[in-house]
Amino acid sequence: MNIGIVGLGLIGGSLGLDLLASQQDHNYVWGISRNPETCKQAEAIASVNVASTDIAEIPDRILRQTDIVVICTPIAAILPTIAALAPKFSPNVIFTDVGSVKSAIVEPASKICEQFGQRFVGGHPMAGNASQGISAAKWNLFKNRPCVVTPSADSEAVRDVRSLWQSVGMNVYECSPEEHDRAVAMISHAPVMISASLIAACQQEGDAGVLKLAQNLASSGFCDTSRVGGGNPELGRLMAEYNQPALLRSLQTYQHSLQEVISLVENKQWAELEAWLANTQRDRAFYMD
Amino acid sequence: MNIGIVGLGLIGGSLGLDLLASQQDHNYVWGISRNPETCKQAEAIASVNVASTDIAEIPDRILRQTDIVVICTPIAAILPTIAALAPKFSPNVIFTDVGSVKSAIVEPASKICEQFGQRFVGGHPMAGNASQGISAAKWNLFKNRPCVVTPSADSEAVRDVRSLWQSVGMNVYECSPEEHDRAVAMISHAPVMISASLIAACQQEGDAGVLKLAQNLASSGFCDTSRVGGGNPELGRLMAEYNQPALLRSLQTYQHSLQEVISLVENKQWAELEAWLANTQRDRAFYMD
Repeated sequence: MNIGIVGLGLIGGSLGLDLLASQQDHNYVWGISRNPETCKQAEAIASVNVASTDIAEIPDRILRQTDIVVICTPIAAILPTIAALAPKFSPNVIFTDVGSVKSAIVEPASKICEQFGQRFVGGHPMAGNASQGISAAKWNLFKNRPCVVTPSADSEAVRDVRSLWQSVGMNVYECSPEEHDRAVAMISHAPVMISASLIAACQQEGDAGVLKLAQNLASSGFCDTSRVGGGNPELGRLMAEYNQPALLRSLQTYQHSLQEVISLVENKQWAELEAWLANTQRDRAFYMD
Repeated sequence: MNIGIVGLGLIGGSLGLDLLASQQDHNYVWGISRNPETCKQAEAIASVNVASTDIAEIPDRILRQTDIVVICTPIAAILPTIAALAPKFSPNVIFTDVGSVKSAIVEPASKICEQFGQRFVGGHPMAGNASQGISAAKWNLFKNRPCVVTPSADSEAVRDVRSLWQSVGMNVYECSPEEHDRAVAMISHAPVMISASLIAACQQEGDAGVLKLAQNLASSGFCDTSRVGGGNPELGRLMAEYNQPALLRSLQTYQHSLQEVISLVENKQWAELEAWLANTQRDRAFYMD
């Protein structure tokens, strides 16, 4: 396969590494980054065969033979990037993305591609971590991790994008953009706000001595519960901005569950509280590998 | 020092291991457990010099020479255990505990001890993990971990209990039972309810397909945020029962912080949301080691 990767960060860079590491697939990978240093580094670590800041520098015969272009930019850049690149490719090309929201991307991206007789398939490989940039790229980042692919009228295009992610070891799930956005709002976007609210609440403690004590006593439980709330604020904002309806719905559902447990504590319903906690203990297992 | 440990679980068992491992301190450790197998195991791993299910089996001369009795039972058993044991000791003995709440323990425990001319100092070594029982006991469990000790009119007793925990490597903080309870409500007890509410909210998803998808897509972010909510329900209930006022207050403060972020999402105040998340990112560092 001939694959283009636009955006050579953790996801794009790691995808290239795995695609080129697999000798039997005879992949050819070209890459685009805004940063010339990133291009050099991606070539140096064999994440791409060739990379440039300017698509005009990628030879025409390579562009013409490209099977899939994977847009690995931040969410806000996905649609403008597809609009800028699509005219340069033949109708055979498939565009796909790695954005963590799908409703806001899939329909407009598909419309852009249709204008050029091309196909778009939404994707979301869920393999990120706190690291960023080409220097964080690594082999086997995607292994055994889940990936969502959204449906398309062109089943061949969906199959090719599925195969791409399966070839780097992902478990691929196909679902509508709306289903994806509801599911990730619950298990990924809402937890950021829930976790951040814990940090915000602790900082509300008015007694400076108690606040300092709390900071000294905080241990693994607080560390884990607050972890995603201490993440990249820009990423948190983008999740919310591009997945607003589903996130709001999840947070409101959460608010009701929280109110339920507060009532149990307030009314000292200890047996009911223990039963409620036994349920959450049992249910958590459904979300673990 | 001559130390008695009542309750040979993770905390009691590990304390004994470290006390006996330190040759230079010439410690003698005796232990009590309800379970004869636990007593045998504690002796076998050198967590105690001698252990029994019945304090009558610990030789009188050893009891008379005991400097500190550390009550390592579950919270609900602390006061009854002290009441049962105090008559068997001389006025020189100091009782202390390891319970995760202090207001509900320190005053009544001090009153029981006073009847026998003995001293009580509240303690809370924060070194637990998900494991339980003597088989989870290990060396250096307490090293560099925080421990709270509560004040007493008898400064010598406080100094001795501080020394005990410092001798196994803990960072000891002295504060009132009320300050302790407010601090741990925020950083330990409220997170359990906040984390459990996330699991409960996810399970509210009415679309079985989306629920199944969420379970398949859940990864490290969900895993960490939900971890303490998936813990021992009985322990969660006891925290709430014995620290109700402080926990309720923390949860209500949390509810306000959550409402704040929900409003930002609802009103699409993206710049404000990013600034709010930048604050929580910065503030989280105050709670980390």
